[in-house]
Amino acid sequence: MKNVIVGQSGGPTSVINSSLLGVFQTAKDRGADIVYGMVHGIKGLLDEDIIDLSKEIRNELDMDLLKRTPSSFLGSCRYKLPDLEGNEKTYEKIFAILKKYEIYAFFYIGGNDSMDTIMKLADYGKKIKSPIRFMGVPKTIDNDLMITDHTPGFGSAAKYIAATMKEVIRDGLVYDYPVVSVVEVMGRNAGWLTSAAALAKGDDCEGVDMIFLPERVFDIDYFLKKVGELLKQDRSIVIAVSEGVKVADGRYVCELADHVDYVDMFGHKQLAGTARFLAGEVAKKYGCKTRAIELSSLQRCAAHVMARVDMTEAFNVGGAAVKYAFDADEKTGEGMTGMVVTLKRVLDDPYICITEPADVHEIADIEKKVPDEWITKDGTYVTDDLVHYIHPLIQAEIIPLWVNGLPHHIKRGHTD
Amino acid sequence: MKNVIVGQSGGPTSVINSSLLGVFQTAKDRGADIVYGMVHGIKGLLDEDIIDLSKEIRNELDMDLLKRTPSSFLGSCRYKLPDLEGNEKTYEKIFAILKKYEIYAFFYIGGNDSMDTIMKLADYGKKIKSPIRFMGVPKTIDNDLMITDHTPGFGSAAKYIAATMKEVIRDGLVYDYPVVSVVEVMGRNAGWLTSAAALAKGDDCEGVDMIFLPERVFDIDYFLKKVGELLKQDRSIVIAVSEGVKVADGRYVCELADHVDYVDMFGHKQLAGTARFLAGEVAKKYGCKTRAIELSSLQRCAAHVMARVDMTEAFNVGGAAVKYAFDADEKTGEGMTGMVVTLKRVLDDPYICITEPADVHEIADIEKKVPDEWITKDGTYVTDDLVHYIHPLIQAEIIPLWVNGLPHHIKRGHTD
Repeated sequence: MKNVIVGQSGGPTSVINSSLLGVFQTAKDRGADIVYGMVHGIKGLLDEDIIDLSKEIRNELDMDLLKRTPSSFLGSCRYKLPDLEGNEKTYEKIFAILKKYEIYAFFYIGGNDSMDTIMKLADYGKKIKSPIRFMGVPKTIDNDLMITDHTPGFGSAAKYIAATMKEVIRDGLVYDYPVVSVVEVMGRNAGWLTSAAALAKGDDCEGVDMIFLPERVFDIDYFLKKVGELLKQDRSIVIAVSEGVKVADGRYVCELADHVDYVDMFGHKQLAGTARFLAGEVAKKYGCKTRAIELSSLQRCAAHVMARVDMTEAFNVGGAAVKYAFDADEKTGEGMTGMVVTLKRVLDDPYICITEPADVHEIADIEKKVPDEWITKDGTYVTDDLVHYIHPLIQAEIIPLWVNGLPHHIKRGHTD
Repeated sequence: MKNVIVGQSGGPTSVINSSLLGVFQTAKDRGADIVYGMVHGIKGLLDEDIIDLSKEIRNELDMDLLKRTPSSFLGSCRYKLPDLEGNEKTYEKIFAILKKYEIYAFFYIGGNDSMDTIMKLADYGKKIKSPIRFMGVPKTIDNDLMITDHTPGFGSAAKYIAATMKEVIRDGLVYDYPVVSVVEVMGRNAGWLTSAAALAKGDDCEGVDMIFLPERVFDIDYFLKKVGELLKQDRSIVIAVSEGVKVADGRYVCELADHVDYVDMFGHKQLAGTARFLAGEVAKKYGCKTRAIELSSLQRCAAHVMARVDMTEAFNVGGAAVKYAFDADEKTGEGMTGMVVTLKRVLDDPYICITEPADVHEIADIEKKVPDEWITKDGTYVTDDLVHYIHPLIQAEIIPLWVNGLPHHIKRGHTD
């Protein structure tokens, strides 16, 4: 038996199921016997909550629905494996389960935190000379992985953000008095998603007026001064701001407001209220009408706006992971392990992108931020270089399968 | 000269420009010389901020872009005409301007408040025996107009809300621990939009767990008790709640929270924070992860999700308004005035809907609420009758014109 197992971890994206399909279909094409899915990632594996994907993905319609279904089909988790020292039992248990299911290769679709899982399992596997291959498949709307040109999931989220900004800008200009709309975009430490707001600008759209990324210190006084200058033009203003912007003393802007807060299992603070706080400050200072808009989880689940480029690349990184794990190396005679599939932009115009394997140690637990030179000097907008970088990633569409007036999806256990 | 003038007023919808096109095209087809547009509604008329629509809508591409452009193409206002007594000068000024531009018929696309404008102008026109026809073209995402079966704009907003709920539900179920998502939907006094959340339920979707409309008193203790019961199933929960829900003493739920508040020119309170407040209460009581999602202005401007049924009806009410104003009545020999075009559902299955004129006095300034029998006994969901009522209105799609990866729009002055 040559079985494989695949899991999804961390926050979902609109195209994370295309990567799942890429793993499933390519593994089947290359002769895998059973393609198992871990329900809720590594946590599900530890509980042996495992399904046979052939029973869920049965035909072409299932495949086309899976591509268009947001959220992780297999369910996700935010479980981080403990360090090996002192926790050998956890690793022994995992490898016993993998042996029981005759697993040849293990694929994990996720971001920084999830690549930590691949790194630890691959390292342990090498230590005990296990033949099992461990491969990381990148995904995250945050686009904050090292080495890879960009991450699958980012393009669709960027497309949704830019399309929504265009609509919010049109809506904001409707009245004959100025409205200041502050739109809060996801991104704790990296401003990639927020910078996608710059793509709204075009022949048919005025674009957003300012963009604030977490890479730069946020100066509230300067922010208010710039809003005041824009208000002199007596028109509505739209400002995109990352949820993760911080003031000079290191506090998040939203921490300056009175709000409920909590910390998740990875120690990430749950941020909310940056836009609301800033809109309130503008209203206090200028007495104008303001609006706080949080794009919230819609950014990562609005699968009805999906970039075809992104979907195809998401499928390809899943498929390439299988290829790298299955194809025997000339020297070692074995497939790869402990690697992550990355995307390499070969050409910018026309846009051409290929996959390439990279050592997981260079990717796990590290965040890639927006380069300083891609942010304007005063930190209120992004440069054309950044726009050109994102532009090819939001191209082309994949239309939902509209059933009964709504985009149709597929859910686990639909065959029951 | 037989000129007409058209304006847009109040909050926009995704299809309000289809009504504008319906007026423009039908008036041209019926021999109108110039079709003027008021920029920012009646306020623009008073300032003689008037444009010739032929210069803006020049060809078939302009028309197809206009149909797909959210927000009011002409700009909007929330200006309410004063009562006639003591304000004769305002009316004299308006009629002098209309005379100057040789206006035969005046069309106003709007909701309750905007129909008040039509009522006052038509009444004054009759009083001074003016030949000018005044016709109301209904629009509002709120669906709260009397007589008409539903309002253009509601179907597309309902489609967006139901589609988004499906995505939020899939996203909420991704983790292996329960998340309580509270989604706040527009609707101060009428729960039509919030009830559209019920359409998410289907073969491929679990649906939302509870729906709270402003038509019923909101009982926080009962709400928390029901959330507690649902949490016993150990799965994620999605709750749709109207921004306008009130507790027994008449206060809005969001007023129980600490937040910024203000009142607009019509005396409407700006509501925000209902979902945030309720999510906080759930987190406090049950210690679970919660999420507050405000659909905010995206509900009225997300033109990339438009119901074709809605778009067609929006065009038709605009066109019918022209027909009623232009066609000579058998008895009087004149076209109609002081009327609003309504939609009459002739048949439910298959859905067939026609236009019918109604006296503006029966529509202006009155709100239609969700009938009590369409809300379940305990007030936590809506009935199948309500779902069947909305179902035909969200059907069929109109695909955006995707240009450069984003939905393309048209803006005023694009010919400059």
